[in-house]
Amino acid sequence: MKHHFKYILPLAIIFIAACNHNQKTEDPKQEKVLVFPKGEKITNKSFTGTAYLQMLMDADSLNVTSVGNVTFEPGARSNWHLHPAGQILLVTGGVGYYQEKGQPKKILRKGDAIKCPPNVAHWHGASADSEFIQVAITGRENGPTVWLGAVTDEEYNSFSK
Amino acid sequence: MKHHFKYILPLAIIFIAACNHNQKTEDPKQEKVLVFPKGEKITNKSFTGTAYLQMLMDADSLNVTSVGNVTFEPGARSNWHLHPAGQILLVTGGVGYYQEKGQPKKILRKGDAIKCPPNVAHWHGASADSEFIQVAITGRENGPTVWLGAVTDEEYNSFSK
Repeated sequence: MKHHFKYILPLAIIFIAACNHNQKTEDPKQEKVLVFPKGEKITNKSFTGTAYLQMLMDADSLNVTSVGNVTFEPGARSNWHLHPAGQILLVTGGVGYYQEKGQPKKILRKGDAIKCPPNVAHWHGASADSEFIQVAITGRENGPTVWLGAVTDEEYNSFSK
Repeated sequence: MKHHFKYILPLAIIFIAACNHNQKTEDPKQEKVLVFPKGEKITNKSFTGTAYLQMLMDADSLNVTSVGNVTFEPGARSNWHLHPAGQILLVTGGVGYYQEKGQPKKILRKGDAIKCPPNVAHWHGASADSEFIQVAITGRENGPTVWLGAVTDEEYNSFSK
Protein backbone atom coordinates (compact mmCIF):
# COMPACT_ATOMS: atom_id res chain seq x y z
CA MET A 1 0.00 0.00 0.00
CA LYS A 2 2.74 2.40 1.01
CA HIS A 3 4.05 2.26 -2.55
CA HIS A 4 0.83 3.87 -3.84
CA PHE A 5 1.15 7.01 -1.72
CA LYS A 6 3.84 8.14 -4.14
CA TYR A 7 1.09 8.63 -6.72
CA ILE A 8 -1.13 10.84 -4.60
CA LEU A 9 0.58 14.20 -5.11
CA PRO A 10 0.93 14.00 -8.91
CA LEU A 11 -2.60 12.61 -9.20
CA ALA A 12 -3.95 15.44 -7.06
CA ILE A 13 -2.14 18.00 -9.22
CA ILE A 14 -3.58 16.54 -12.42
CA PHE A 15 -7.06 16.36 -10.90
CA ILE A 16 -6.95 19.99 -9.80
CA ALA A 17 -5.60 21.01 -13.20
CA ALA A 18 -8.46 19.18 -14.92
CA CYS A 19 -11.03 20.87 -12.68
CA ASN A 20 -9.51 24.29 -13.28
CA HIS A 21 -9.52 23.70 -17.01
CA ASN A 22 -13.26 23.10 -16.85
CA GLN A 23 -13.85 26.09 -14.59
CA LYS A 24 -12.17 28.33 -17.14
CA THR A 25 -14.42 27.07 -19.92
CA GLU A 26 -17.50 27.99 -17.86
CA ASP A 27 -17.15 31.68 -18.68
CA PRO A 28 -18.09 31.32 -22.37
CA LYS A 29 -21.08 29.22 -21.30
CA GLN A 30 -22.18 31.97 -18.94
CA GLU A 31 -21.94 34.40 -21.86
CA LYS A 32 -24.28 32.22 -23.87
CA VAL A 33 -26.93 32.57 -21.18
CA LEU A 34 -27.43 36.16 -22.39
CA VAL A 35 -30.26 35.82 -24.87
CA PHE A 36 -30.26 39.36 -26.27
CA PRO A 37 -27.55 42.05 -26.46
CA LYS A 38 -27.08 44.26 -23.41
CA GLY A 39 -27.19 47.42 -25.52
CA GLU A 40 -26.22 50.93 -24.50
CA LYS A 41 -26.12 52.56 -21.07
CA ILE A 42 -29.29 54.56 -20.40
CA THR A 43 -28.31 58.18 -19.87
CA ASN A 44 -31.69 59.84 -19.29
CA LYS A 45 -32.87 60.92 -15.84
CA SER A 46 -35.68 58.35 -15.60
CA PHE A 47 -33.48 55.77 -13.90
CA THR A 48 -31.56 55.48 -10.62
CA GLY A 49 -28.25 53.62 -10.91
CA THR A 50 -26.90 51.97 -14.05
CA ALA A 51 -29.16 50.34 -16.61
CA TYR A 52 -28.75 49.33 -20.25
CA LEU A 53 -31.24 49.24 -23.13
CA GLN A 54 -31.17 47.27 -26.35
CA MET A 55 -34.23 47.92 -28.51
CA LEU A 56 -35.33 44.67 -30.18
CA MET A 57 -38.30 46.04 -32.13
CA ASP A 58 -39.68 49.51 -32.68
CA ALA A 59 -43.41 50.13 -32.95
CA ASP A 60 -44.75 51.28 -36.32
CA SER A 61 -48.10 52.41 -37.65
CA LEU A 62 -49.20 48.83 -38.37
CA ASN A 63 -47.69 46.99 -35.41
CA VAL A 64 -48.00 49.25 -32.40
CA THR A 65 -45.90 47.21 -29.97
CA SER A 66 -42.26 47.93 -29.10
CA VAL A 67 -39.87 45.45 -27.50
CA GLY A 68 -36.72 46.33 -25.59
CA ASN A 69 -34.19 44.38 -23.54
CA VAL A 70 -33.32 46.18 -20.30
CA THR A 71 -30.46 45.18 -17.98
CA PHE A 72 -30.35 46.73 -14.50
CA GLU A 73 -27.17 46.52 -12.45
CA PRO A 74 -27.69 45.62 -8.75
CA GLY A 75 -29.66 48.39 -7.01
CA ALA A 76 -30.62 50.13 -10.29
CA ARG A 77 -34.28 50.86 -10.97
CA SER A 78 -36.61 52.88 -13.15
CA ASN A 79 -38.46 55.93 -11.87
CA TRP A 80 -42.17 55.53 -11.21
CA HIS A 81 -43.93 55.64 -14.60
CA LEU A 82 -46.98 54.46 -16.48
CA HIS A 83 -47.79 53.16 -19.95
CA PRO A 84 -51.05 54.36 -21.55
CA ALA A 85 -51.50 50.97 -23.27
CA GLY A 86 -49.84 48.79 -20.61
CA GLN A 87 -46.71 46.66 -20.64
CA ILE A 88 -45.63 43.03 -20.27
CA LEU A 89 -42.28 42.16 -18.68
CA LEU A 90 -40.51 38.84 -19.39
CA VAL A 91 -37.62 38.12 -17.03
CA THR A 92 -34.69 36.49 -18.83
CA GLY A 93 -32.10 36.71 -16.04
CA GLY A 94 -31.27 37.75 -12.49
CA VAL A 95 -33.54 38.85 -9.66
CA GLY A 96 -35.51 42.07 -9.58
CA TYR A 97 -38.51 43.94 -8.23
CA TYR A 98 -41.81 45.16 -9.66
CA GLN A 99 -44.16 47.38 -7.72
CA GLU A 100 -47.45 49.08 -8.59
CA LYS A 101 -48.39 52.20 -6.64
CA GLY A 102 -50.10 51.23 -3.38
CA GLN A 103 -49.23 47.53 -3.79
CA PRO A 104 -46.47 45.48 -2.18
CA LYS A 105 -43.22 45.05 -4.06
CA LYS A 106 -42.98 41.72 -5.93
CA ILE A 107 -39.80 39.73 -6.48
CA LEU A 108 -39.26 38.63 -10.09
CA ARG A 109 -36.90 35.91 -11.24
CA LYS A 110 -35.75 34.45 -14.57
CA GLY A 111 -38.72 32.88 -16.33
CA ASP A 112 -41.33 35.12 -14.69
CA ALA A 113 -43.76 37.19 -16.75
CA ILE A 114 -45.83 40.06 -15.37
CA LYS A 115 -48.48 42.34 -16.83
CA CYS A 116 -48.63 46.00 -16.01
CA PRO A 117 -52.12 47.35 -16.78
CA PRO A 118 -52.56 50.60 -18.74
CA ASN A 119 -52.12 53.82 -16.76
CA VAL A 120 -51.05 52.10 -13.52
CA ALA A 121 -48.01 53.81 -11.97
CA HIS A 122 -45.23 51.32 -11.26
CA TRP A 123 -41.48 50.82 -11.21
CA HIS A 124 -39.13 47.91 -11.85
CA GLY A 125 -35.48 47.27 -11.26
CA ALA A 126 -32.77 44.97 -9.94
CA SER A 127 -32.53 43.62 -6.42
CA ALA A 128 -29.72 45.03 -4.28
CA ASP A 129 -27.46 42.01 -4.81
CA SER A 130 -28.23 40.82 -8.34
CA GLU A 131 -28.58 42.23 -11.80
CA PHE A 132 -31.98 41.96 -13.45
CA ILE A 133 -32.59 41.37 -17.15
CA GLN A 134 -36.04 41.80 -18.64
CA VAL A 135 -37.71 42.09 -22.02
CA ALA A 136 -40.27 44.91 -21.93
CA ILE A 137 -43.19 44.64 -24.37
CA THR A 138 -44.98 47.96 -24.57
CA GLY A 139 -48.13 49.00 -26.41
CA ARG A 140 -47.63 52.37 -28.07
CA GLU A 141 -51.13 52.90 -29.47
CA ASN A 142 -52.21 55.30 -26.71
CA GLY A 143 -49.07 57.42 -26.55
CA PRO A 144 -45.62 57.31 -24.97
CA THR A 145 -44.59 56.32 -21.44
CA VAL A 146 -45.40 58.94 -18.79
CA TRP A 147 -42.46 59.37 -16.40
CA LEU A 148 -43.04 60.26 -12.74
CA GLY A 149 -40.73 60.72 -9.73
CA ALA A 150 -37.73 58.67 -8.66
CA VAL A 151 -38.14 55.59 -6.46
CA THR A 152 -36.77 56.62 -3.08
CA ASP A 153 -34.39 54.40 -1.11
CA GLU A 154 -37.19 53.91 1.42
CA GLU A 155 -39.55 52.69 -1.30
CA TYR A 156 -36.81 50.55 -2.87
CA ASN A 157 -35.94 48.93 0.46
CA SER A 158 -39.54 48.38 1.57
CA PHE A 159 -40.73 44.94 2.63
CA SER A 160 -41.03 42.57 -0.32
CA LYS A 161 -43.40 39.74 -0.87
CA MET B 1 12.66 8.89 -16.95
CA LYS B 2 11.45 5.33 -17.42
CA HIS B 3 10.36 5.32 -13.79
CA HIS B 4 7.77 8.00 -14.55
CA PHE B 5 5.93 5.96 -17.19
CA LYS B 6 4.47 3.97 -14.30
CA TYR B 7 2.40 7.05 -13.45
CA ILE B 8 0.91 7.54 -16.90
CA LEU B 9 -1.92 5.01 -16.77
CA PRO B 10 -3.30 5.98 -13.33
CA LEU B 11 -2.88 9.66 -14.18
CA ALA B 12 -4.74 9.20 -17.45
CA ILE B 13 -7.57 7.38 -15.67
CA ILE B 14 -7.91 10.17 -13.10
CA PHE B 15 -7.78 12.83 -15.82
CA ILE B 16 -10.51 11.13 -17.87
CA ALA B 17 -12.59 10.64 -14.73
CA ALA B 18 -12.26 14.34 -13.91
CA CYS B 19 -13.29 15.33 -17.44
CA ASN B 20 -16.27 12.97 -17.38
CA HIS B 21 -17.32 14.36 -14.03
CA ASN B 22 -17.45 17.81 -15.56
CA GLN B 23 -19.27 16.58 -18.66
CA LYS B 24 -21.99 15.14 -16.47
CA THR B 25 -22.45 18.43 -14.67
CA GLU B 26 -23.03 20.18 -18.01
CA ASP B 27 -26.56 18.84 -18.32
CA PRO B 28 -28.00 20.97 -15.50
CA LYS B 29 -26.29 24.01 -17.06
CA GLN B 30 -27.90 23.25 -20.39
CA GLU B 31 -31.24 23.10 -18.59
CA LYS B 32 -30.66 26.57 -17.21
CA VAL B 33 -30.31 27.94 -20.73
CA LEU B 34 -34.06 27.40 -21.10
CA VAL B 35 -35.50 30.77 -20.18
CA PHE B 36 -39.19 29.84 -20.12
CA PRO B 37 -40.97 26.51 -19.60
CA LYS B 38 -41.42 24.27 -22.65
CA GLY B 39 -45.12 23.80 -21.88
CA GLU B 40 -47.46 21.26 -23.44
CA LYS B 41 -47.35 19.47 -26.77
CA ILE B 42 -49.50 21.23 -29.37
CA THR B 43 -52.18 18.79 -30.51
CA ASN B 44 -54.15 20.88 -33.00
CA LYS B 45 -53.83 20.42 -36.77
CA SER B 46 -52.14 23.78 -37.42
CA PHE B 47 -48.62 22.35 -37.07
CA THR B 48 -46.49 19.77 -38.87
CA GLY B 49 -44.23 17.73 -36.58
CA THR B 50 -43.90 18.17 -32.83
CA ALA B 51 -44.14 21.57 -31.17
CA TYR B 52 -44.79 22.74 -27.62
CA LEU B 53 -46.56 25.84 -26.27
CA GLN B 54 -46.28 27.55 -22.92
CA MET B 55 -48.49 30.64 -22.68
CA LEU B 56 -46.68 33.36 -20.74
CA MET B 57 -49.41 36.01 -20.84
CA ASP B 58 -52.99 36.02 -22.08
CA ALA B 59 -54.51 39.09 -23.69
CA ASP B 60 -57.30 40.85 -21.81
CA SER B 61 -59.65 43.73 -22.52
CA LEU B 62 -57.11 46.32 -21.29
CA ASN B 63 -53.86 44.80 -22.54
CA VAL B 64 -54.55 43.24 -25.90
CA THR B 65 -51.22 41.45 -26.39
CA SER B 66 -50.63 37.75 -25.73
CA VAL B 67 -47.22 36.16 -25.25
CA GLY B 68 -46.41 32.48 -25.73
CA ASN B 69 -43.23 30.41 -25.73
CA VAL B 70 -43.14 27.95 -28.63
CA THR B 71 -40.59 25.14 -28.99
CA PHE B 72 -40.36 23.37 -32.35
CA GLU B 73 -38.53 20.04 -32.60
CA PRO B 74 -36.23 19.70 -35.65
CA GLY B 75 -38.32 19.77 -38.85
CA ALA B 76 -41.49 20.95 -37.07
CA ARG B 77 -43.29 24.06 -38.34
CA SER B 78 -46.53 25.95 -38.18
CA ASN B 79 -49.03 25.98 -41.04
CA TRP B 80 -49.25 29.12 -43.11
CA HIS B 81 -51.26 31.66 -41.08
CA LEU B 82 -51.79 35.36 -40.49
CA HIS B 83 -52.37 37.64 -37.50
CA PRO B 84 -54.88 40.50 -37.99
CA ALA B 85 -52.80 42.75 -35.69
CA GLY B 86 -49.36 41.35 -36.50
CA GLN B 87 -46.80 39.48 -34.42
CA ILE B 88 -43.25 39.84 -33.12
CA LEU B 89 -41.02 36.78 -32.70
CA LEU B 90 -38.06 36.77 -30.30
CA VAL B 91 -35.72 33.81 -30.77
CA THR B 92 -34.42 32.45 -27.44
CA GLY B 93 -32.77 29.28 -28.71
CA GLY B 94 -31.91 27.06 -31.64
CA VAL B 95 -32.14 27.70 -35.37
CA GLY B 96 -35.34 28.12 -37.33
CA TYR B 97 -37.05 29.57 -40.37
CA TYR B 98 -39.49 32.39 -41.02
CA GLN B 99 -41.12 32.96 -44.38
CA GLU B 100 -43.72 35.40 -45.64
CA LYS B 101 -45.81 34.39 -48.69
CA GLY B 102 -43.88 35.25 -51.86
CA GLN B 103 -40.67 36.06 -49.98
CA PRO B 104 -37.52 33.97 -49.47
CA LYS B 105 -37.24 31.90 -46.30
CA LYS B 106 -35.16 33.58 -43.59
CA ILE B 107 -32.93 31.79 -41.09
CA LEU B 108 -33.45 32.88 -37.48
CA ARG B 109 -31.05 32.25 -34.62
CA LYS B 110 -31.00 32.86 -30.86
CA GLY B 111 -31.12 36.60 -30.20
CA ASP B 112 -32.93 37.47 -33.43
CA ALA B 113 -36.20 39.40 -33.43
CA ILE B 114 -38.55 39.64 -36.40
CA LYS B 115 -41.78 41.52 -37.07
CA CYS B 116 -44.62 39.93 -38.96
CA PRO B 117 -46.95 42.67 -40.28
CA PRO B 118 -50.73 42.40 -39.85
CA ASN B 119 -52.55 40.14 -42.32
CA VAL B 120 -49.37 38.88 -44.02
CA ALA B 121 -49.45 35.10 -44.52
CA HIS B 122 -46.34 33.44 -43.10
CA TRP B 123 -45.00 30.37 -41.32
CA HIS B 124 -42.24 29.67 -38.84
CA GLY B 125 -40.57 26.57 -37.53
CA ALA B 126 -37.37 24.72 -36.72
CA SER B 127 -34.58 23.93 -39.14
CA ALA B 128 -34.21 20.29 -40.13
CA ASP B 129 -31.31 19.68 -37.74
CA SER B 130 -32.01 21.91 -34.75
CA GLU B 131 -34.85 22.75 -32.43
CA PHE B 132 -36.15 26.31 -32.47
CA ILE B 133 -37.42 28.21 -29.43
CA GLN B 134 -39.25 31.50 -29.86
CA VAL B 135 -41.37 33.89 -27.85
CA ALA B 136 -44.38 34.98 -29.92
CA ILE B 137 -45.90 38.38 -29.09
CA THR B 138 -49.27 38.68 -30.76
CA GLY B 139 -51.72 41.58 -30.93
CA ARG B 140 -55.27 40.33 -30.36
CA GLU B 141 -57.15 43.58 -30.91
CA ASN B 142 -58.26 42.73 -34.45
CA GLY B 143 -59.29 39.14 -33.86
CA PRO B 144 -57.70 35.71 -33.63
CA THR B 145 -55.03 34.10 -35.83
CA VAL B 146 -56.31 32.94 -39.24
CA TRP B 147 -54.96 29.49 -40.07
CA LEU B 148 -54.23 28.49 -43.67
CA GLY B 149 -52.76 25.39 -45.35
CA ALA B 150 -49.82 23.25 -44.26
CA VAL B 151 -46.27 24.13 -45.33
CA THR B 152 -45.36 21.47 -47.89
CA ASP B 153 -42.02 19.68 -47.78
CA GLU B 154 -41.11 21.51 -51.01
CA GLU B 155 -41.80 24.87 -49.38
CA TYR B 156 -40.00 23.83 -46.20
CA ASN B 157 -36.91 22.66 -48.09
CA SER B 158 -36.78 25.64 -50.46
CA PHE B 159 -33.59 27.70 -50.77
CA SER B 160 -32.93 29.79 -47.66
CA LYS B 161 -31.29 33.15 -47.32
